[in-house]
Amino acid sequence: MDAMMMDSMKTAMPGMEMDMAAMQACMDACAACEQACTVCSTQLMSCSPACMNCADMCNTMMRTMMRMQGMTPAAMMAMLDACIAMCQVCMDECMEHADNSEVCKMCAAACQACMDACAMVRESMIAAR
Amino acid sequence: MDAMMMDSMKTAMPGMEMDMAAMQACMDACAACEQACTVCSTQLMSCSPACMNCADMCNTMMRTMMRMQGMTPAAMMAMLDACIAMCQVCMDECMEHADNSEVCKMCAAACQACMDACAMVRESMIAAR
Amino acid sequence: MDAMMMDSMKTAMPGMEMDMAAMQACMDACAACEQACTVCSTQLMSCSPACMNCADMCNTMMRTMMRMQGMTPAAMMAMLDACIAMCQVCMDECMEHADNSEVCKMCAAACQACMDACAMVRESMIAAR
Amino acid sequence: MDAMMMDSMKTAMPGMEMDMAAMQACMDACAACEQACTVCSTQLMSCSPACMNCADMCNTMMRTMMRMQGMTPAAMMAMLDACIAMCQVCMDECMEHADNSEVCKMCAAACQACMDACAMVRESMIAAR
Repeated sequence: MDAMMMDSMKTAMPGMEMDMAAMQACMDACAACEQACTVCSTQLMSCSPACMNCADMCNTMMRTMMRMQGMTPAAMMAMLDACIAMCQVCMDECMEHADNSEVCKMCAAACQACMDACAMVRESMIAAR
Repeated sequence: MDAMMMDSMKTAMPGMEMDMAAMQACMDACAACEQACTVCSTQLMSCSPACMNCADMCNTMMRTMMRMQGMTPAAMMAMLDACIAMCQVCMDECMEHADNSEVCKMCAAACQACMDACAMVRESMIAAR
Repeated sequence: MDAMMMDSMKTAMPGMEMDMAAMQACMDACAACEQACTVCSTQLMSCSPACMNCADMCNTMMRTMMRMQGMTPAAMMAMLDACIAMCQVCMDECMEHADNSEVCKMCAAACQACMDACAMVRESMIAAR
Repeated sequence: MDAMMMDSMKTAMPGMEMDMAAMQACMDACAACEQACTVCSTQLMSCSPACMNCADMCNTMMRTMMRMQGMTPAAMMAMLDACIAMCQVCMDECMEHADNSEVCKMCAAACQACMDACAMVRESMIAAR
């Protein structure tokens, strides 16, 4: 995510105080998680449906952060909670066979990183209240 | 959504009691809302970003309902809350110029229907506890 | 897809002659195919990756038909060809175990219907030249 | 895209000779283009629908490259052609007002880079025949 593009997004959020560095890190973590989940889902292991759901939710979360016009703090919180919940489900499913699959281990790590990044945005919103 | 396909999905949710008729209605409402929002977003009115976010979230909600393996009640609740929140944002944005745009009026109605359908699934989960 | 919404889309395509009934049928077939593929992919059979690709492509095809502003006949033809190709791949994969899975059989039928609907739009564009 | 993840994808493409470095560069270019288009579409300029279509197609192209199981050379070519076509449409729309919008200029550059990356994969497939 380019600095100029980030500036353009900042103007889209009048009245919502957010830590733009945390937002940028979160969008990157969502993109990385979508990719890891997409690859992981092709293994046809029991985690596949959870991986696909997580990939779609991370993409939707990332896009929403790029399109904040009209977003309210309550809607943003609900999205972050849902993204964290879906990463948790995917991570739990992948950890069940992480010993047998390096890809699952990597996917679980990407889910954890995405959850952490979403939590950071969440905290920055609460701190800014 | 075909009856046989619904049967196939039911087996994917051991241990989670849900009203399958409410689920089916909700998937249909999500699909209809995604379509209305996609068309509405092309009008280049101020609601467009909210419409695009809502379209993506409704698609992710619908797909998650078709891929319930691994889902927990908590994750499902978080997803329903996020979908309801995004429909609310989109509806509020569209209602600001619903007098000038029949498409916005239709999009707002699709958002309301999707919120109602998500709330029904939510209630069926609480009732089944 | 509502008649009024179809009217709104028609105005988005100045200079591109298309059979709007064929377009409407194609959007419906894409939506149905996305749903069948999404359910089919949860079976963790060898067709799953092809089903997921087909689901994503059908969704992108449907949305593009709802957002024709700026589209050229050449781009539309390329999209239809790609959608047909991805449905073909998915159908071929599903047919390999259609005897063992009713869901695969249904998914293959949805792919065939989507291919046919895309071909109809393609033909209507060629006829209108 | 992590080296180990790339290895895992390579095994998914028996019988299809592709330049994995070109594939990796193309997936990165698709992801960057999806993000640029998503931001650009929020400007509510005439390019918005083309940007949204391009974002969806680039995401579908990227995911397909991560899920090559079952893909045929013909289907891969059709997807690359469609992705190139959609980037071209988006770039043309954005260039019409690139003088007035830095975001459009950046989006057009991301489209050009994605087209080039897709063309490189295309050429590597033809060379490997």
